[in-house]
Amino acid sequence: MSDQQEGRTELSHLGKFALIDRLTDDFPLRHDSSFKGIGDDCAVLGTGSVKTLVTTQTMAEGVHFDMTYTPLRHLGYKAISVALSNIAAMNALPRQVLVSIAVSNRFSVEALDELYAGIRLCCDRYDVDLVGGNISSSRSGMVITVTAIGEADEKQIAYRSGAHLHDLVCVSGDLGSAYSGLLILEREKVTFQADPNFKPNLEGFDYVLERYLKPEPRIDIVQLLRENNIVPTSMIDVSDGLASELLHICKQSDCGCEVYEERLPIDYQTSRVCSEMSQNMLPVSNALNGGEDYELLFTIRQSDYEKIKELSGIHIIGHITEAGSHAMLVTPQNSTIRLRAQGWHDNQ
Amino acid sequence: MSDQQEGRTELSHLGKFALIDRLTDDFPLRHDSSFKGIGDDCAVLGTGSVKTLVTTQTMAEGVHFDMTYTPLRHLGYKAISVALSNIAAMNALPRQVLVSIAVSNRFSVEALDELYAGIRLCCDRYDVDLVGGNISSSRSGMVITVTAIGEADEKQIAYRSGAHLHDLVCVSGDLGSAYSGLLILEREKVTFQADPNFKPNLEGFDYVLERYLKPEPRIDIVQLLRENNIVPTSMIDVSDGLASELLHICKQSDCGCEVYEERLPIDYQTSRVCSEMSQNMLPVSNALNGGEDYELLFTIRQSDYEKIKELSGIHIIGHITEAGSHAMLVTPQNSTIRLRAQGWHDNQ
Repeated sequence: MSDQQEGRTELSHLGKFALIDRLTDDFPLRHDSSFKGIGDDCAVLGTGSVKTLVTTQTMAEGVHFDMTYTPLRHLGYKAISVALSNIAAMNALPRQVLVSIAVSNRFSVEALDELYAGIRLCCDRYDVDLVGGNISSSRSGMVITVTAIGEADEKQIAYRSGAHLHDLVCVSGDLGSAYSGLLILEREKVTFQADPNFKPNLEGFDYVLERYLKPEPRIDIVQLLRENNIVPTSMIDVSDGLASELLHICKQSDCGCEVYEERLPIDYQTSRVCSEMSQNMLPVSNALNGGEDYELLFTIRQSDYEKIKELSGIHIIGHITEAGSHAMLVTPQNSTIRLRAQGWHDNQ
Repeated sequence: MSDQQEGRTELSHLGKFALIDRLTDDFPLRHDSSFKGIGDDCAVLGTGSVKTLVTTQTMAEGVHFDMTYTPLRHLGYKAISVALSNIAAMNALPRQVLVSIAVSNRFSVEALDELYAGIRLCCDRYDVDLVGGNISSSRSGMVITVTAIGEADEKQIAYRSGAHLHDLVCVSGDLGSAYSGLLILEREKVTFQADPNFKPNLEGFDYVLERYLKPEPRIDIVQLLRENNIVPTSMIDVSDGLASELLHICKQSDCGCEVYEERLPIDYQTSRVCSEMSQNMLPVSNALNGGEDYELLFTIRQSDYEKIKELSGIHIIGHITEAGSHAMLVTPQNSTIRLRAQGWHDNQ
């Protein structure tokens, strides 16, 4: 193959998840305090019943964010949000963050002030302590890595691997809106680049833009589930798109699932973006493959149905099927489509 | 000033430590489990007597490493080493690491295999579990961020702030050798760039080269101190150079110090590099300002003198002086020179 010349395999040939599997295969866990290692949204540490959860998340300029349309305050907020979302994805509550920034001299002290104002805002909002980190030079652009630390009782922690046959598949909020916001920003950027006097038209897209630029970790959903004595059997956050996340749960729980297209929660602004962009762009595609929604996807026992059905902001979208079956989308016409991972940043 | 036009302050104008102080000033600690926040080598977390230490360390291509002469296996090893050194710098033992890598498609899968072989080697050597992390794209080059997690009894932890009047100032290993190794590599690189047929001459510099390319965290010193029932009153690792680290301890402990030039441990290869490079290059300058030695600089009570004086690999280089005095170097001629931070990557 063209991308495997002279013993060189391109990163794109393997894909993100296969690459991580290859590189981290067979790393031993030697310490009792390493309760759960690689393979979920967080590592789980500690020997007592209350566990410490640790996760690390990187955002690189030009890959995860574009300075053309990303206010630095939003960027700081989002960097924290995205890391906290990984803590929420284990049904845990965040406590501390450390922030490491590599930054080129293109950025000024005042620019970093703005970035940290956003970091501070998100820490305040989610009751999280900034306890460390560092700032170093980079040759070009900015790379932000946030380490988030959380806490949960061992019995509360939800892994990707715990889904069982007939469990209900649930998702919070709505899907596809963050990607729709990105589409609008990219469209306006292209027009702006062609005509610097052009004034971007973002009216009527405030919701999807905020979903992309300033997402919120769903700590409130973790709290809501606790208040209602519901412990999800499995959980993950929607960072790469619903399809990709469903496949993670199915793979790690050794099961399949059926989710119903008409049950997928899609905001009207997402539908509007799709209809403006192209006749061929379907809102359901954004919901399945858009990514960056940072909603929580989780499964619960059928016996918890009565408890969950009245909770606002949580949608039951399907159920878990037996081992050996696939992750399937059921259309309104009752045909089924096998889900494939097409996360728009699969290679990040 | 030329670098403060139109409300823009250049990062270089402020310097690394002042920048960190400015950005992280006044972040509140809300949780009991945030035992010690920003301002030392690690954050200290937990409510029990056994504390969890967390630190994060970034290495960026073109700033902290140069792919021209850095084997990827060494780079992976060093990325872990440097993070573990921060744990050692608190007199604690490392347990887990998470590794986040942002990498451009210039690197192949096989290159990352090499990097991870080095990561694995260092984890094996220091009995550390790789429990998480992520891999993402970067627009250019490689940025590696390692989060290291350690453990120590509250009474064992050594902060930068604990030095007292008359305490003895100690340092492990030798100083200036890593920077000397870097000087050799840079010299050979320049010659190689002028003549691609040139074969680098690295003979006789194996020790200083290894010190730069593959440093070791001094976990052995932490263990040696424990075996001899010595708890340092303060501690830091030598990443930016002895002078810079002494100033950190003096500032945070509200004291001064005197260190004796003739007591500074300097390897003969370091002296040889200096004499080859320039008649004006003094080995003591490399020791004071070279950085990246990852030795431990610490203070002990005078009452521990009898215990420490026989320990191999630890050098008593001076003593702590009263509040209001400065960090001073005492020359063999008994004159004193006030130390200033001139870390060779002060702005990283």
